[in-house]
Amino acid sequence: MTASDADRVARVGLSRLGEPGDPRISALLEEMGAVRLFAALTEECDLEGVHTDVAARLAGADPGRDLERAESRGIRFVVPGDDEWPPQVGDLAGAGTVHDRGGAPLGLWVRGPVRLDQLQDSVAIVGSRSSTAYGEGVARAVAGDVVTRGMTVISGAAFGIDQAAHRGAVAAGGATVAVLASGVDRPYPVAHTRLIQHLADHGAVVSEVPPGSAPTRVRFLIRNRLIAALSRGTLVVEAASRSGALSTARWAERLNRTVMAVPGPVTSIQSAGPHDLVRSAAAQLVTSGAEVLELLGASGSHLIVEPCRQTRARDVLRPREARVLDAVPVSRPATTESIARTAGLGLVAVQTALGFLARDQFVERLEEGWRLGPQGRA
Amino acid sequence: MTASDADRVARVGLSRLGEPGDPRISALLEEMGAVRLFAALTEECDLEGVHTDVAARLAGADPGRDLERAESRGIRFVVPGDDEWPPQVGDLAGAGTVHDRGGAPLGLWVRGPVRLDQLQDSVAIVGSRSSTAYGEGVARAVAGDVVTRGMTVISGAAFGIDQAAHRGAVAAGGATVAVLASGVDRPYPVAHTRLIQHLADHGAVVSEVPPGSAPTRVRFLIRNRLIAALSRGTLVVEAASRSGALSTARWAERLNRTVMAVPGPVTSIQSAGPHDLVRSAAAQLVTSGAEVLELLGASGSHLIVEPCRQTRARDVLRPREARVLDAVPVSRPATTESIARTAGLGLVAVQTALGFLARDQFVERLEEGWRLGPQGRA
Repeated sequence: MTASDADRVARVGLSRLGEPGDPRISALLEEMGAVRLFAALTEECDLEGVHTDVAARLAGADPGRDLERAESRGIRFVVPGDDEWPPQVGDLAGAGTVHDRGGAPLGLWVRGPVRLDQLQDSVAIVGSRSSTAYGEGVARAVAGDVVTRGMTVISGAAFGIDQAAHRGAVAAGGATVAVLASGVDRPYPVAHTRLIQHLADHGAVVSEVPPGSAPTRVRFLIRNRLIAALSRGTLVVEAASRSGALSTARWAERLNRTVMAVPGPVTSIQSAGPHDLVRSAAAQLVTSGAEVLELLGASGSHLIVEPCRQTRARDVLRPREARVLDAVPVSRPATTESIARTAGLGLVAVQTALGFLARDQFVERLEEGWRLGPQGRA
Repeated sequence: MTASDADRVARVGLSRLGEPGDPRISALLEEMGAVRLFAALTEECDLEGVHTDVAARLAGADPGRDLERAESRGIRFVVPGDDEWPPQVGDLAGAGTVHDRGGAPLGLWVRGPVRLDQLQDSVAIVGSRSSTAYGEGVARAVAGDVVTRGMTVISGAAFGIDQAAHRGAVAAGGATVAVLASGVDRPYPVAHTRLIQHLADHGAVVSEVPPGSAPTRVRFLIRNRLIAALSRGTLVVEAASRSGALSTARWAERLNRTVMAVPGPVTSIQSAGPHDLVRSAAAQLVTSGAEVLELLGASGSHLIVEPCRQTRARDVLRPREARVLDAVPVSRPATTESIARTAGLGLVAVQTALGFLARDQFVERLEEGWRLGPQGRA
């Protein structure tokens, strides 16, 4: 299912006119719909003072062209009604107040292969920019653990904990998503240009402000609510008393998400925030990725009773098939002869086994030979 | 008020015959009283098998002489009915089971000026023998903090956290009490002879086994219940998974005392115990002596005044002013029109806001436009 083109284009226009989470625009949107609201604003109706505020941005507004240009650069604008729309951000509707500008986003600009509707199994890993080596190590380890078990990591793109979380997820070969306060084509901080490009290539980079937008203080705060809303739970790794990570935790609490905090030395200022969260019962203490999964796992799927091994598809294979499968390279195809050599098995036995393995999609036959299929990579 | 001499002497005798916390002796004591029970055992009545167990110890038993000799060496035997008897250990009656031998003590052997009836305002600080420098530092600091505010520290006399807690209390000039698994005249570990002597001179050394008794494994475990029972709350500073400190915490929980735990690096085995206690909601996380006092303090007397956050200049701004301020570049000046575009606000509103902001030095007007002023850069 897809939202109508007119609705999408109107939301692009509104996304450029207003500031994210403006409760007046949210209210008007609900009342009038995006198409009528955008038309009214371009026709200079001063709805609750919104027109006056956005007048300067109206000049030359051409959302249709904006959308085309974005799409030509591999940026999509996901709106409610799209298959990709992440339903969980709907929890933001009504969660905002005039003071903290917290309504649901008009739409989300996205770069990257990870789809937003696949973020149900995700955990936000957030924390201080001025983190310690200890905090960064924990963030990396936890991120690696959770992606290995199929979760997606969500964070900002700041120095410190954000960066460590992404790097931990990337190193473990998992999916990770950065939510920016600037446009998805405008890396901030600039020093993270390559990191953000990597996430755009392999994960996703998400923003609620249009491409080209600058990050501002307000946008950082309002961005935090999206990180909390998109994920099933928020983990605060390190945070001094005024850290923005605490605002993400507060949003997560407000949205009834699981809030978790990593303890650390009581002598570390960067662990004061997590300790405060635990002391005030706002967060649960966790010390590992396994504990994060235990708290977030769907109906006991991640309970840590004992490290009982997940049954994988390959557990059903017969020993000889498993041995052949182990000899098939991940991406680069290999010939039957080469696989037989690697497996230390006879050619006929290997051919037979490959036939069974191909039937069940453990391997795929290409012109140049065999490589792992979807089941084999799982 | 004082217990009768006959009762005290009989309890001395029972204290030498049985092992501490023997539930059979507790039950018989309640039924028969100390004098009749001791007489029956010396007359070889085999009450519920107790006589068989204690027969070897009966030979030459002379509790009257034991008591005299102890008193001549500055050791007193405090029993229920004495003014000095600490009423809170009465909570142990019935708390024990046959399995964990947890009844109330027959009496308590004491050396030192601190009176046991003055331990209502006390906190047990316990933890691992193989502690880290971090844990010892926290134990010292917390002990120093709480004694400065009039609390007494209670602990064992082991290496590691016990020692650090006593040293912290002593260094701060406060009262501290060691509960031993051996006789109060038999320092264990021997390396702590001077520490224990210091406590006997300035605090108190307490035991439920008679002078001269050796420490045994069972006596250590049964001793832990006394540490928990004597104090208003138990703080576990560091503890690996099987640490005896966790048994003290379990006793404290069972006795409805406050159980507290100090967080530490998740990478430290010695912090695993405290983290487990917090995760299972058996303990509350604390990071300082002030927080211990807040949890234990009598009716709010130690409430922590929130370290009221530093108000920064920009916190006083109204939302619209803050938004305009965010749109003002740091160094390069911008025109009012450009600021209005960036802020997404009307020109008049922006002009008004800039006026207020300039008055308070958040922005400065240059010929080419506006830039941040001293307050805005702060």
